[in-house]
Order: sequence, then structure tokens, then C-alpha cells
Amino acid sequence: MSFKYKLESVSGKARAGVITTPHGKIETPIFMPVGTRATVKGVMPRDLKEDIGAEIILGNTYHLYLRPGHELIAEAGGLHEFMGWDRPILTDSGGFQVMSLSGLRKITAEGVRFQSHIDGSYHMFSPEKVMEIQNAIGADIIMSFDECPPYPATKKYVAESLKTTLDWARRGKAAHKRKDQALFGIVQGGIYEDLRQESAEALMEMDFPGYSIGGLAVGEEKTHMLRITEYLNGILPADKPRYLMGVGTPEDILNNIANGVDMFDCVMPTRNARKGTLFTRNGKLIVKAARYKKDFDPIDSECTCYTCRNFSRAYLRHLFSVDELLAMTLASIHSLHFYLDLVRWSRAAILEGNFESFRQHMLSRMQGGA
Amino acid sequence: MSFKYKLESVSGKARAGVITTPHGKIETPIFMPVGTRATVKGVMPRDLKEDIGAEIILGNTYHLYLRPGHELIAEAGGLHEFMGWDRPILTDSGGFQVMSLSGLRKITAEGVRFQSHIDGSYHMFSPEKVMEIQNAIGADIIMSFDECPPYPATKKYVAESLKTTLDWARRGKAAHKRKDQALFGIVQGGIYEDLRQESAEALMEMDFPGYSIGGLAVGEEKTHMLRITEYLNGILPADKPRYLMGVGTPEDILNNIANGVDMFDCVMPTRNARKGTLFTRNGKLIVKAARYKKDFDPIDSECTCYTCRNFSRAYLRHLFSVDELLAMTLASIHSLHFYLDLVRWSRAAILEGNFESFRQHMLSRMQGGA
Repeated sequence: MSFKYKLESVSGKARAGVITTPHGKIETPIFMPVGTRATVKGVMPRDLKEDIGAEIILGNTYHLYLRPGHELIAEAGGLHEFMGWDRPILTDSGGFQVMSLSGLRKITAEGVRFQSHIDGSYHMFSPEKVMEIQNAIGADIIMSFDECPPYPATKKYVAESLKTTLDWARRGKAAHKRKDQALFGIVQGGIYEDLRQESAEALMEMDFPGYSIGGLAVGEEKTHMLRITEYLNGILPADKPRYLMGVGTPEDILNNIANGVDMFDCVMPTRNARKGTLFTRNGKLIVKAARYKKDFDPIDSECTCYTCRNFSRAYLRHLFSVDELLAMTLASIHSLHFYLDLVRWSRAAILEGNFESFRQHMLSRMQGGA
Repeated sequence: MSFKYKLESVSGKARAGVITTPHGKIETPIFMPVGTRATVKGVMPRDLKEDIGAEIILGNTYHLYLRPGHELIAEAGGLHEFMGWDRPILTDSGGFQVMSLSGLRKITAEGVRFQSHIDGSYHMFSPEKVMEIQNAIGADIIMSFDECPPYPATKKYVAESLKTTLDWARRGKAAHKRKDQALFGIVQGGIYEDLRQESAEALMEMDFPGYSIGGLAVGEEKTHMLRITEYLNGILPADKPRYLMGVGTPEDILNNIANGVDMFDCVMPTRNARKGTLFTRNGKLIVKAARYKKDFDPIDSECTCYTCRNFSRAYLRHLFSVDELLAMTLASIHSLHFYLDLVRWSRAAILEGNFESFRQHMLSRMQGGA
């Protein structure tokens, strides 16, 4: 089955919908756990699916291209087969990683020449090359190559970068070979509403099946992010999904759902979990803290995840204290489950028409106010 | 239900039996995955139980005493509750660890004064203290404190050490408070048959519900180990289980089952798995090797573990190459599953009366001969 999006219901500006892909349906709003290098760190696909309830995960084009390489993944039968994940996958464009990870990069009209952060070898990402890579990886949803300007950047820089990104979107669309993969265009334009509008309208003219919002959560103040997503909500078409790339905290997710965003991904729940900081409906919990030494309650007594059903704060604290592998796995399972709960609850609230009161309640509760 | 052992069948000297404990039955011969610090490294209890089929696991008294401490475990409701494992547990005596891990130790008639390998703090293990610790931890099967002589050691040293260990076994038995925990005596005596006999007979006089064979696999040649277990098979009572501590390779397990051993534990499957060396019925497989880069077969195409059902050698090789956590988990699951398969198959062969031909077949196959 090819790609489809159906808007089911709105509550304020918040949207509930269903995306259909060749690997199944995704109920939105949705959070996508990040599986950078063909694995969501420390979590088995079975647990992602059965316990956490992930409906789609994200793979990083830049990382997969470098290791194990897109040709190898294609030989394995694609990323789904390679990593044992039979639900939808989205791959990003690599644009953010060549900006943030690569030691050296040179941007030309042709593309970006960059050095691998692993061994310093030289590589070239062009819009065509990035399509070739993503076609080989075989995700259900893929991204056109973009230049992701750093923050802060002058308006002049962002405006010129935007022209390049739009040209690359056109070239990527032309180069995209697999019609079973939905190619999203990425809206850039930094913190400037007029540039965002220019970007969105140009992409809409090219008619993508979905639109990503890039270049946010790159260091700018939170107010800019919300201003831009609210602004774009008034421009982007209602009948296409919107994906806010690389965002964010539980608060960010709620606030951007309120601005009409449908899809999110972020390393925050898993990266924090591996260091012992867990997200819960009652705020962050730093489980390594001495106060949990003899606390035999679960991380969150209302949570239904495998970790909370079976283990105490004291046990997790012990595992972190002695650097046991299981600490990272159990913490990641909990925090991903919470992020998925957050979007499941948001969706239910949207369908019931009371998202705004749900959002206020959750924000207050996460600040310890409930 | 209290502790019971029932010998069901023999095939040559190999024995099939059933151990009953307060946390359920154990079919022997059995391999016990090692859960040193209240976790089998990288493996969730659910997978240990449902996928690997572990019937009993081992906890290390020395490690648990140091972190998180036996009082904390008791407050949590015991080790089963603390680590979320509802099947039987065995704790060792700490004797081997104070010998092999502690920076400094001083042995007196009273016990062993040693320094923690973690922070250099001083501690004293006496037979009474080790009972107190194991009573607090709450395993189903516990060990009397022993002095584990290093190898090589003079016969004079081993003979004197043996007297101390026998005295400690008496004192431990007297100090043991919880009648729901089965206390095993540990046969020592190094590579000397007369000392092993003296040790076994003195312990048998004290009438323990099971007998452990300690002080092997500490550096001596393999022929000594098999000679001693064969010798002890002629001495130890048929109606009590025999546990060979800290052994060993798949070959060791088969060869010692052939000598009448019922229980085994070893870090070998998990420690090797974390470094990328997996055990299979076709021998060891070093999955990081370049030859597996594009090998899309499972680790062992006949294996029914979660890892082999879902992932390829190429995928595991990738995970190891990029140092992903999941590599260690998936490899550990496979190798533990194989070790449990090995004892399950052994048991089936004993019940069918053809253990010796099974053993020959497996040994030949593991050497690449099948």
C-alpha cells in the first residue's frame, strides 16, 4: 500500500490523523524513537513494538551511509530486514549531521563535501546521492537533502541557504526512484517568518506527500520554535503530515502538537535514559540520586512499561551505580514508553476535543504541579 | 516447598534428576547463568526465562555484599524481588572471589580479612558472616564459606586449607538460620584424590542436601578436573545433587555431565558474547570477523533463540563494529540459549539412555566434525 495521510480530527490547532505506509499505519501525533545506526540503542525491536508501542522509528542516513553502508543494507534486503523491524521507518536527510558532526564541510551548489567524523575520509552528499542512499536503505518515509544553517546565522546567509535547499529539493524529487517511499520536503528559513513562508510555498508547489520542519532546536530560544511552528500551521496544507525534526522535550512535544505538528523524533529520551535521567508524567527523575537508594517504588507507579511493572528505583539506581548494561536498557524502555504514552494521550485528547486542557494538565503535572 | 532432589535416570555415570526449591523445580543437569551483581549482564529476566529457558541463576555473594549490600537486598524483600526473578537462585560462598579479586587477604582460623577490589576498604568474611549475608540475600541454594586454594599449591597447603574449610562448613551449618534455603557443602582438596576423599567424606558426615565441587577450573590442566570429578562420582551420594563451581566450556560441561555432575555455572558464555565470540553447536563463532560482513545467515541456522530467529551475522557484526549495546545483549541471549540447549539435550539423551553417543556426537560437531 502506498503512502496516505488522513486528517481525522482537530482540537484547537492540534491534529489527529492516520498515515498509511507499505509497512503499516501510524496514528498521529506520533513520536519516533531514534535508531541511529540500525538500532534504537539498547532496546530490542520486540520491546519497541510490543512493550513501548513504537509505530515508526527513525534511521540516520549519514550514520547508515558511513556504517554499515547503504549498499550492504540493500544487499540485506533493506533496513527493515537488516535490523528486524517490520513497522514503518523514516530516514532523515543527513543535512543536520553533516552540519553538526562532520569535522570539515564545504557547501557548493552541487552538494556538501564533508569529512567522516569516524576516520576523516572525504565524502560528497548531493541531493541525488542522498536519494540513492535512501532508496537503498528503503525506509517508508525519506527526506530531501537540505542545508541546515547553524544558529545563529545572518538572515542573508539563511536566505541564500534556503535557495540552495529548494534547488536540492527539486533535484532530489527528480532523482527519487522508488515510488513506494514517500519523499518529504524540508522547510528551512531559520527564525524568519518570511523565509519560512517562501520555503513552505515553494515546496508546496512541488507537491510533496508531507512536509518536514528543519532547522529548529539547533540552539535558538524556545519562543522562536513555537512562533515558527504556529506560523507554518497557517501555511502548510491540512491534508499532509508535518514533521518537526529533532524535537524535543515532553513539553516541546505537547506545545508543538498544539501548533499542528504531527510527527516528532528526538534522541532526548534514550540519551538521557542511558545517563540515568528518566522522563515521567511527574517530571524528570534522576534515578542515580542517593535519595532513591532504598526507594522500592517503580520509576512511575502509574506507568505500565516493562521496567515499571517489574523493577524499583532502588534496583535501577544499583544498576547505574555499578555500570550494568541493563540499567541503560531498562531506563530507555521506560522513557520511550512515556514519550509514546504522551503522544497516545495527546491523540486521545484531540479525538475527544479537549487537547488544550490535557496539555495544560500535563504541563502542570510535569512541573510537579499535579 | 522445601529443598528436594530426585534422581530420575542414569546413562553411564551421567545423571538426570529434578531439584525442588521454594521457587520451583530445576531439571538437571542444569547450567546456571551468572548474575553477578543482581543482573545477568545485558539480559532482561523475561528473556532469561521465556527465551533462554534458564531454570536457576547464580548471584555472587562477594559482589552483592559490596554493592548494593545484603541489608539493602533484604529490605527489598530478597534478591528474587529486588532483581525481578521469580525462579530459583543460588549464591556462591565468596571464597573464590576473596581469593581471585581482593587485593589483599589474610586467612585465619576465624575467617578471611580482605580488601574490597572497588575502594580498598577492609572487610571480614567468617563462616557465620557469610551465612548472615546469604540469609539476607535469600537465594534458594547457598554455599558454606570455603577457602579456595590457588593453583598451583603444595599438597601441604591444600591439606591445611582443607581442615579450615571443613571447620568453616561445620560453623556455617550451625549459623545457618533459614531452613527454606538449602546449604551445600563445598568439597575442596585441589588435584589430590586422597584430600578430595577426606573432604567429601567429612562433609557427607555433616549431611548436606547437596555437594559443590570447588577449587577446579582455577588454572590446572583439564585432565585434573575430569580425574577429580570422576573420582568424586564414586564417593558422593547418589541421592544428592553435585554442583561443579565455575565450569566451563561446552566441552567441559558435556565431559563433567559424563562424570555425574548435575549443576554448572560459568561467566564464559556471557563474557565471551560481550566481546563478540559466540558458542554454537558448530563451535565458536567470532562474529566480528570480516568474513561475516555480508553473511545474512543467522549465527546458527538451527538455533531457536530470539537472536537467531530475527538477526543475521552481518547485523551482529555491524552492531559490534559500531559498539552498540544491542550487540552484547543479542550475543548473550544466543550463547546462554545454547548453553541451556546443551544441558536440555544432555538431559534428554540421559533419559533415553544414550548420553555417551550424544556426547561424542556433540564434541565432534563442536570441533567442526559434524
